[in-house]
Formats: sequence, structure tokens, C-alpha cells
Amino acid sequence: MANEKDAVNQIADVDKDFAQWYTDVVTKTQLVDYGPTKGSMVIRPYGYAIWENIQKELDRRFKETGHVNAYFPMLIPLSFLQKEKDHIEGFAPEVAIVTHAGGEELAEKLFIRPTSETIICHMYQKWVQSYRDLPILINQWANVVRWEKTTRPFLRTSEFLWQEGHTLHADADEAMEETLKILYLYEEFCKNILAMPVFIGKKSEKEKFAGAVATYGVEAMMRDGKSLQSGTTHYFGTNFTKVFDITFQDRDKERKHPHESSWGVSTRLIGALIMAHGDERGLCLPPRVAPYQAVIIPIMGHKGGVNERCVELKRELEKAGIRIKLDDSDERPGWKFNEYEMKGVPLRIEIGPRDLENGVFTYGRRDRAGEKFSGKLDKASDEVIKILDDIHENMYAKAKKFNDNRVKLVKNVQELKEAVDSGNFVLTMWCGDRKCEEKVKELTTASTRVMPFDQKMDKGLAAKCVCCAKKADIKIYFAKAY
Amino acid sequence: MANEKDAVNQIADVDKDFAQWYTDVVTKTQLVDYGPTKGSMVIRPYGYAIWENIQKELDRRFKETGHVNAYFPMLIPLSFLQKEKDHIEGFAPEVAIVTHAGGEELAEKLFIRPTSETIICHMYQKWVQSYRDLPILINQWANVVRWEKTTRPFLRTSEFLWQEGHTLHADADEAMEETLKILYLYEEFCKNILAMPVFIGKKSEKEKFAGAVATYGVEAMMRDGKSLQSGTTHYFGTNFTKVFDITFQDRDKERKHPHESSWGVSTRLIGALIMAHGDERGLCLPPRVAPYQAVIIPIMGHKGGVNERCVELKRELEKAGIRIKLDDSDERPGWKFNEYEMKGVPLRIEIGPRDLENGVFTYGRRDRAGEKFSGKLDKASDEVIKILDDIHENMYAKAKKFNDNRVKLVKNVQELKEAVDSGNFVLTMWCGDRKCEEKVKELTTASTRVMPFDQKMDKGLAAKCVCCAKKADIKIYFAKAY
Repeated sequence: MANEKDAVNQIADVDKDFAQWYTDVVTKTQLVDYGPTKGSMVIRPYGYAIWENIQKELDRRFKETGHVNAYFPMLIPLSFLQKEKDHIEGFAPEVAIVTHAGGEELAEKLFIRPTSETIICHMYQKWVQSYRDLPILINQWANVVRWEKTTRPFLRTSEFLWQEGHTLHADADEAMEETLKILYLYEEFCKNILAMPVFIGKKSEKEKFAGAVATYGVEAMMRDGKSLQSGTTHYFGTNFTKVFDITFQDRDKERKHPHESSWGVSTRLIGALIMAHGDERGLCLPPRVAPYQAVIIPIMGHKGGVNERCVELKRELEKAGIRIKLDDSDERPGWKFNEYEMKGVPLRIEIGPRDLENGVFTYGRRDRAGEKFSGKLDKASDEVIKILDDIHENMYAKAKKFNDNRVKLVKNVQELKEAVDSGNFVLTMWCGDRKCEEKVKELTTASTRVMPFDQKMDKGLAAKCVCCAKKADIKIYFAKAY
Repeated sequence: MANEKDAVNQIADVDKDFAQWYTDVVTKTQLVDYGPTKGSMVIRPYGYAIWENIQKELDRRFKETGHVNAYFPMLIPLSFLQKEKDHIEGFAPEVAIVTHAGGEELAEKLFIRPTSETIICHMYQKWVQSYRDLPILINQWANVVRWEKTTRPFLRTSEFLWQEGHTLHADADEAMEETLKILYLYEEFCKNILAMPVFIGKKSEKEKFAGAVATYGVEAMMRDGKSLQSGTTHYFGTNFTKVFDITFQDRDKERKHPHESSWGVSTRLIGALIMAHGDERGLCLPPRVAPYQAVIIPIMGHKGGVNERCVELKRELEKAGIRIKLDDSDERPGWKFNEYEMKGVPLRIEIGPRDLENGVFTYGRRDRAGEKFSGKLDKASDEVIKILDDIHENMYAKAKKFNDNRVKLVKNVQELKEAVDSGNFVLTMWCGDRKCEEKVKELTTASTRVMPFDQKMDKGLAAKCVCCAKKADIKIYFAKAY
């Protein structure tokens, strides 16, 4: 598009103004645009293609673990929201309400799902009668609406896309096993697909989902050292199955309430990967979700059959399953280099007359911008596959190192504040008292993120609460969060 | 699920009460359930899997023809609806309105998209400046809400899932080419994926989309001889681009309005294939969209390694890309046969001890229910692929024959009425006057469906309007329609 041309090199300095950098990058690379209503976003083709790749990878994983997809109505009677008291407290302030439809005022107002526990439990009540009906392992890909005060594309918008799994199990153990299984699935996905190391663990009572017994979080560290909650899984116990009167006859002939889990990730993941991998040049997309993994740029394309060879190469690489773009437009190569760098294309392949003579292609890697490499043209598809894997590994390693360097062990609020103010996560000890958690937040703006599963005492920590200094045996991450 | 057991053989007679048959089939096979609000449906896993297969096939076709996906906000300012006068007339009576969100009354009310022309044109206005920005070839997979008076699962529901393509082109020819290209794409998809022959052509002015210059329809004949509009493509000219002030600078430096097309199919396609292929035994699913294409039923599974061989066979077939279910539950084989017949599974594979001895598998085809066949076990995956293709071809041929037998050429309203009352489409001549169209509808309840592209006079017709008997040169299908 015409206005792209002006956009190159017009992104804010990533180190000086990260918020503006983010806005510049998401809009100028055409991932997203602002919709006409407050806090809404349009996911443009370049952004949506990332979401499609995320969907494909996650959906495959859900199905391999026995889940099936379904679709439930988006508009839910308001009375459903009121059944679970924590749930309504959490979500009522954010819901959008439909009062009129079909030219008439509705007898019962409807709310647009901010999440679907209520409607799904209403249906499960009809579907479950016997232990033979369990487990139910259903996932839904859908849009949801949450009317948020402050919004940013991908991170927090009035409407977003997500998946929400809702499962029922005969007993607590199985439901908890599911809750953790998906947590690890998300972690594995973030690592192997988004090249993004994450922090996982249990959330505090304060930070858990409205209506859950326990919530587990996937937290990703952004380039500014803040945390982005990138996925959650919840164990509900029988909180919802009781209020929605879901029962089954168990093998022992007793009627029981099934135990429930739910879990979700959203288009927020796109925000996560932008802020985890991006740099001063713009986006840096992980190859396994990049809309195109490589771009071919002919140099002096009209000479010596260059253009023809580029078309051929494109076909070869496509055949090998690589997502590829050929840019044989009239723009200068230098302009193209900047453009695709800003757009975060993992691999740039240049082919000129001299390359053809030597039987090579020249290439640049987005993760090692500025360097030049060369590969054998007659083995291009094998080489490209290897390069893309290496880019993935390198991006992950880089991000992991970044994370590791930015986790500080602290013993008191002063240290905690200094650490989070200079862009770190902290790992510390906490007594478990919500008041301490709230006081830390008040003093530092950092909140508890997750309690890692490995709770053994670290050398740099003492068994005293970071806040009240009383005896403490909970190891927990604090960070400023999006 | 437990209640499935009771459902077998409890579907209404397909010839005596087709409406009840439909309701029985869609609910008892667990394709769908009724949601808690008026006219809403829950698409259950067995139904949603069909939709996923439809999506996959269509999405591939859209991408192969140069389209990309994007996502636009679902909530649209009410003022947008009012911009195009035909559009508001068509859709205002059906929209659902959001008046409150985030605990406050909204300054401007929002409507939930019944279709997205308005919001998409609003965004295109920002994105299009030059002829270099054209064409725009964007598709969206989304939910839409239309508050309908009478509803039936898949056919007409308050919320449904669909895809909507919205394209902009530099001139009328190119936009019209796109409009027809997608019409043919839909036809090809219905034939090659749903095994469903369809009637395509142009819609009358009365039946066209609200705001379009011309609408083209894909009409499918149901088992009762009624038509189900199964897809539409629209040419908008500059109707929307003018009111949304979309202009581009053309090569000749003039500012012009681009020409637009839109097109969509929905979860209604599931209703179409149910009513096109179903029979007295229940569903009959086309193999290319069936959630599982074959079911393996062990006979005396504990004997002579039958169960083990069935597991092995399942793996083999899965490896060959076949969607397969193994039912080794304790139910009687006879119960299973009925069950999978009702559920429309294309191929049933039975393996018992004697089959193993003979190195064969016994099978039943849903499209030739009652017959038994046998195949070589050591070539099972090749054979199954061939059988599934043959089932597809046979289902298409059967449906084609059914359609062909049920198109009657008629010359006057009396003949037309008799023909549609006895479950036929009619092909007839029409003068083009909307009054004649309305009068036929009033007298017969049949409406115009499409004007086929082949407009040469049929032998059985005369150049006189079916209604007013004046000179007529438009050949058109009438039918009762869902």
C-alpha cells in the first residue's frame, strides 16, 4: 500500500518510548488498525495471518489431547451472569448489554459473552447424565467483548478473539490434571511456536479468575521488563456445576456434581510476541507464525534470468511448505530491505546476477540484522528449512537470556521497587496475606504474577515476607504488568 | 452419550413429515441443540466438525484465488447503518442493538453486525488511496446476528457463523468478474465437497441483497423439492464506496470510486447438505465433510486378535489421512449399525474373526444402505480412499438425478402451482415485472430463485410470461424456498 513507503524508519525509539514504539510498529506494519468505536481494533491481513498460524498450531494440540470444538451462542440471558456471585462481580462492570432486537425491546436483556462459562454450563446441564458422558472436553474459538477503560491493540480491546476450553470431569483430580495439562501445553506452544520462554505457576487469590477455585498463569516478559499475562487455566471445582445444577450418576449410583476446568489464550498472544521479540528496527516475527517466513528480493531482476530464477525458487520453497513472498516490484532493494525488516520477516533472500553465476543465494536473517550470509541455490529448500529452525532457536535463546538476566531476587519492598522500576521481574518470598500483596502494589505498582511450581528455597532468598517480614514460605514472582 | 441409545429409530418419517424429520435428525444425531434464547443454536461437536471441514475447503479455495483473511469489529455505530438507504431498509428490522456497556449508557448506540459492508467500507476508506492499493481481496470468518421471526437450526437462527468476502476493484468489469468467480467457486465447492448439485444464476431485483446492484445466488434443491438459498455473491457497483467516500487516484490521475463485491456462505450449508442427502435412516454425510469418514466396528472383538487388528487398521487409515473412529464399546453391533447409519457416517467397516481368517474387511456404505461389501484387509487404506471417492460420486449422481427429475417446465401459474405443490422447481418464462413475481408468490408461495446464465429458449417453453402472458424473454426458476 502506498502509505507504507513513508512509514519505514518512522517508528519511535524502542528504548526511549516503548509505548509509542509499540503503537508505531503495530499500525505501520499493518498488523492492526483502530476501529471506529472506543477500544476496538481491526485485525488486518498481516496480523490475522499470525492469528491463523497460532490457531492452527493450538488447534492441532487441543485435538491431539482429545478435545473437540463446538460453538455456543454469544448472547446470554442476563440472569445467567447472576448465578455465580464471584463471576458477576468480576464481569458485570465490563459487559455490553443488548436491550433491543428485531425492532422490539427484549423481555430479558442479553449480555455479550465476556467468557462463556455460564452459557456452556447451562448446556452441559442438559447433556450430562451419567459418568459415561464424562469427561466433556470442548473448546470454542470465538470473539468476546469486555468493555475496558484503557485499551491498546492486541493487549486490551473491547472485542478480541480467543479460544476457551471448558471441560467437565468425574472428579477433582482429573479436572486438576486437565487444568495443568493445558497450562503445560500453553508453555510448550509459547516455547516451540512463539520462541517465547514464559513463567508459569499458580495465581494468588487476588489475581485468580472470577469464580475459579484456582487459576494458573502463563506470564511472558516483555522487552521493558513488564509482564503480559498471556494465557490462563482455571480449576473451578464444582462452583459452576452446583449453581447450574449439573449432576451425573456415578459408577457407585450416587448423583454427583462434575468438576470443571476452563482455559484460554487470545489475540493478546500477538501483542506478546511483538513486545518479546521486537527491536529498534521493528517487528521480529518467530518463523513458525510469521505470515511469510521468507521474502525473495531480485537484484537487477531483468539481468541474466534473475527474475525467472526467483519465480522458480519461490515455487520450490512453496512446495517444501515454506510461506514465501516474492517482491519483484519496482521499489529500490534498499527500501525493500528496510520494509521487510520492519515487518519482521524472518529471512530475506536476495538473488542477483552474480549470485546466479556462483550458484548461491545471499540472505539476511531478521534475528541477526546487519549480517550477510550465503547458501547454495541448488539446495535452497533444505537450507531455508534449516535456517528458519535456527532463527527460531536463536530467538528463543535470546529471549531466554533476556528473561534470565531480568529476574532479580529481592528481600524487601525497597529492593523490589528498585528492581521493577528498572525493568525486572522479581522473585521473592511472600507470607500469603492479601494485604501484603496489596501494599506492595500500592508502593511499587507491581503485582503478584505466579507462584512457580518449584517452591524450593533459593539461595538468595530468606523465609521472610518481602512486605511484612513475617515468616513466609511462598516463593512468588512480582512484576509490573500490562 | 447415554441418551443417544434411546434415539435410534426415533426419527419421524422423512416422506410424511419432513420438518419433523429435520428437527429429529439434527438434534438426535447431536449436530445441534437449542440455546436458551429465542432462535439461538448451539453447534455441538459433531455439527461443528462439519463446519470445520467446510471452512478448511473454502478457505483453501479463497487463498488460492488471492484472498486474505482479516477481522473487523462486530459492534458498529448505528449511524453507519443509515448511510446506504436500501441497506438500512433491508437490515434495520433484524438488528440487535447494544445500548449499555461498561456499566454506562452508550453515547452512540451500536448494532451487532448482520453483515459487515458498513464497517468494512469505513476502514477501506482509510486504506485506499491509489490504484496501487487495489484490488483489495479480503475475507472474514465471523459470527453475525439477525433477529428473525421464525427460526430453525442451521437454516435461520438469531446468530450464525459465516464467511463474508468484501472486495474493491478499480473498475466495474473486474468487480463483476470477482462476483462471478466466487459464484462459480461456490458451485464447484458444493459439487466437489458437498456432493450437492446447485442452481446458479442472477437474482431478481426483488430478491437481491439490500444495497447491491446485482445479486447472484446458489440455490440447492432439498428433498422436499423446496429451495435453500445456500450462498450469494453481490456486485455493488459504487453504491457503498460513494456513501463511504472511498476514492482512489487512478493511473490517469483522476480520483474515482472503486467498484465493490461481497459474497458469503454460512452454517446454513450444513442444513443444505442434511436436507439434500438425508433419508429415512437419518443423516447421509458427504465423505469430504463428514466428521469421521469411516467407523470401524469389531465383531466379537475379544476373539482371535480382532480388537488388536482394528486398532492397527485405525492407525493405518489415519496415516492415510482418513478421518476414522473405532467403536469398540460394549454396545451390540446391531445397535452400532443403526447409530452410525443415523449419524450418516459414509463408511462402516466390520471386522470379525472370520474376516481376519479370510484377510478381508466387510463394509457397508451409507449411500447404499442395506448392501454388504468386502475388501482386502492388506490394501485397506487404498481401498477405503477409493470407496469414499465412489460414495461421493454416487451421492452427487443421485442428487443430480433427483434435481433433474424435479425441474418442471411450466407455462402458466396453474401449472406452476401444481408443480411446486408437488415438490418441484419450475423453470419458466417471466416478463421481468416485479408485479408478476409478487403475484406468483401470492398465488403459489413460490418465489423467483435465479435466472440461469444459459438463457436460450427451452423447447418446452414459450416466450410468454408465466403470469401476465405478455412477451417475456427471461428464463427463471421459481420454487418454494426455506
